[in-house]
Amino acid sequence: MTASQGEPLDAHDRYSRAALSFLADPGDPVMGALLRSVQPMELLAAVISGRPNPGSTLAGDRFSDGGPALVTAPVADRAVERWRTRLPDVPPASRVAAWERSGYRLVCPGEAEWPTQLDDLGDARPVVLWLRGSADLRFACLRSVSIVGSRAATAYGTHVGTGLAAEIAGHGWTVISGGAYGIDACAHRGALAVGGCTVTVLASGLSFGYPKGHDELFGAISRTGVMVSECPPERAPTRPGFLVRNRVIAALSRGTVVVEAALRSGAINTARHAHELNRPVMAVPGPITSEQSAGCHELIREWGATCVTRARDVIELVAPLGDAERGPDREPAVPADDLDPVTASVLQAVVRRTGRGPATIATLAGVDLDTALRSLGLLAAAGHVERCEQGWRARQAG
Amino acid sequence: MTASQGEPLDAHDRYSRAALSFLADPGDPVMGALLRSVQPMELLAAVISGRPNPGSTLAGDRFSDGGPALVTAPVADRAVERWRTRLPDVPPASRVAAWERSGYRLVCPGEAEWPTQLDDLGDARPVVLWLRGSADLRFACLRSVSIVGSRAATAYGTHVGTGLAAEIAGHGWTVISGGAYGIDACAHRGALAVGGCTVTVLASGLSFGYPKGHDELFGAISRTGVMVSECPPERAPTRPGFLVRNRVIAALSRGTVVVEAALRSGAINTARHAHELNRPVMAVPGPITSEQSAGCHELIREWGATCVTRARDVIELVAPLGDAERGPDREPAVPADDLDPVTASVLQAVVRRTGRGPATIATLAGVDLDTALRSLGLLAAAGHVERCEQGWRARQAG
Repeated sequence: MTASQGEPLDAHDRYSRAALSFLADPGDPVMGALLRSVQPMELLAAVISGRPNPGSTLAGDRFSDGGPALVTAPVADRAVERWRTRLPDVPPASRVAAWERSGYRLVCPGEAEWPTQLDDLGDARPVVLWLRGSADLRFACLRSVSIVGSRAATAYGTHVGTGLAAEIAGHGWTVISGGAYGIDACAHRGALAVGGCTVTVLASGLSFGYPKGHDELFGAISRTGVMVSECPPERAPTRPGFLVRNRVIAALSRGTVVVEAALRSGAINTARHAHELNRPVMAVPGPITSEQSAGCHELIREWGATCVTRARDVIELVAPLGDAERGPDREPAVPADDLDPVTASVLQAVVRRTGRGPATIATLAGVDLDTALRSLGLLAAAGHVERCEQGWRARQAG
Repeated sequence: MTASQGEPLDAHDRYSRAALSFLADPGDPVMGALLRSVQPMELLAAVISGRPNPGSTLAGDRFSDGGPALVTAPVADRAVERWRTRLPDVPPASRVAAWERSGYRLVCPGEAEWPTQLDDLGDARPVVLWLRGSADLRFACLRSVSIVGSRAATAYGTHVGTGLAAEIAGHGWTVISGGAYGIDACAHRGALAVGGCTVTVLASGLSFGYPKGHDELFGAISRTGVMVSECPPERAPTRPGFLVRNRVIAALSRGTVVVEAALRSGAINTARHAHELNRPVMAVPGPITSEQSAGCHELIREWGATCVTRARDVIELVAPLGDAERGPDREPAVPADDLDPVTASVLQAVVRRTGRGPATIATLAGVDLDTALRSLGLLAAAGHVERCEQGWRARQAG
């Protein structure tokens, strides 16, 4: 049912998935369950046609063959009925194509940039992802940590959150966060400050870009990292959308660090998702006199979250065995032989010691500057290149 | 070999133990091992007489009958040789009696005030304890927590250490600490501030009272709590003596809380003793930017110490099952029927609601004021009485 990793999907399947993402709320498990055994186009057709009792066709019949029947016919019926009311919201294929031309990448499960770790979300896996930015999401998330926390961050949280993110990014790890005010912003800014890769997962569409006050930050993230949303570009955020979004942050990364969080905080919700996904949950301690650290302390005491105080503690916990010890001079995460031809040509244009500017690299590789920058981003995330004063240089392997 | 709990020892045995405590360093495991099978008087006689090969008599013969022969004859020989050189330091029985008359209580294993939990120290159990103060040590330690930390405490540590100790003492728990500057002093002062019971375990003798700057604090502790040392009253502290003393703090209490500690700190050593004694180890988190919290965070991360942020966290961990839930209205730890006649008469003089001053209570009980205060201290530790504005009142049972 899903194309094997790397093959582009059929255009109709891509459009159908995009259309379905307008019908179901993010994380709708009925949509996820149905898509496990029904082609997106077929499911879209069933919703559009409003054919009598689509549940019996979609869920009842198929699910008795395949996996366990998690969705009963009445549940599927009600879901289809709900989705039908939203059909007027679905944009024509030309609108989706226009978004793609203006820099929003639609990525579907099975495509090259789809991060396969999202499959751990089961039926709550996003139907599609919208991306914007120069980094390749799948490569960027190979070595990634999510750093989240309170919007109402204290001076302490701001200070340690920025420092921790910078240190983690400085070790070649991607920092994932939610683009909110407070700790999220510190996490992104810390990574950007050291020329590291950072990924922001928004609860709004990417062109809506919530919160508006972070327009500049989102611009900086998309220049070297990548912005992610499972909502169509212009979608405004909804209150439940923030909590649902948190599962994507937790699933994309190898582990989640909570820097500051009150006892009831969205960051605790992200930690819960990470916990349920069997990803390490970490928390930064703080003064017990600060309400903004109370959630972190509770995570440590009640949930067994690891008490982390520096990047090394974090990386030791999330790195593949033996990786952390080898330090920055580790082997690349993706062997050079497995790179696509364009990326391989960009890598060949990068020299070892002195480094070269991205424009020179683009010229030597025979690609345009945007392509070169995007390739360099994924080469950096994969451990092949690193930034230097001159621009980029090849990394010494172990 | 040991009198059953509560029986006074023979005067010769008491003097012999006091004398042996002048010969061996605190915690000397050879002394502890020999005392497991040899009467104190006999061991003292062997050291004094310098009889040839005392090891063969003391260790070789006896230990083959009893427990495992932890002390070989040559080890015992060398220890006895070492102790012989200190014989000139041993004071005459009249000097020991003079100390006792001036308020220093000599307590030996098996006597009524000996805290039996010290037996968990095995061969490192103190040979004797010297006490000074109105509280009964064994009663005071029935519900006790040690709160320790850095001498170089920060304003944060001082604040939270004092508050935590006050809250714990306010719940009727005794606070044990080491009388040092910094966190130790906060722990004692916090307990004193709420009229709670506090026990200080010094590395020096009690009349030496190290550090000198704490003369006033030690005076306050002995008025309502108790001072403890395994060294004779006038002994100056030695550098290794502080670390050896820490095992007594850990063993006396039901659990140890580290409030602030650098990575290399005596408080970490106390925590290690608590860990080895299977007592809960707890640590208060703090800013990761503070070196004085680094030891606490390491205890939490590497040792599995519990991250505690308030008295309830601590008491939940150390209280007998079901005790913490019942709160302050719990049953007394020692039933009224098991009290000695003097203490029982003091308890009868205390009324329930309004409370009475200690002088009135002393008159009604027919005892002097000091005796009344000491009895009230142990009655408070055992959960029978509590302080109130008028002085003391009887506690409502569960």
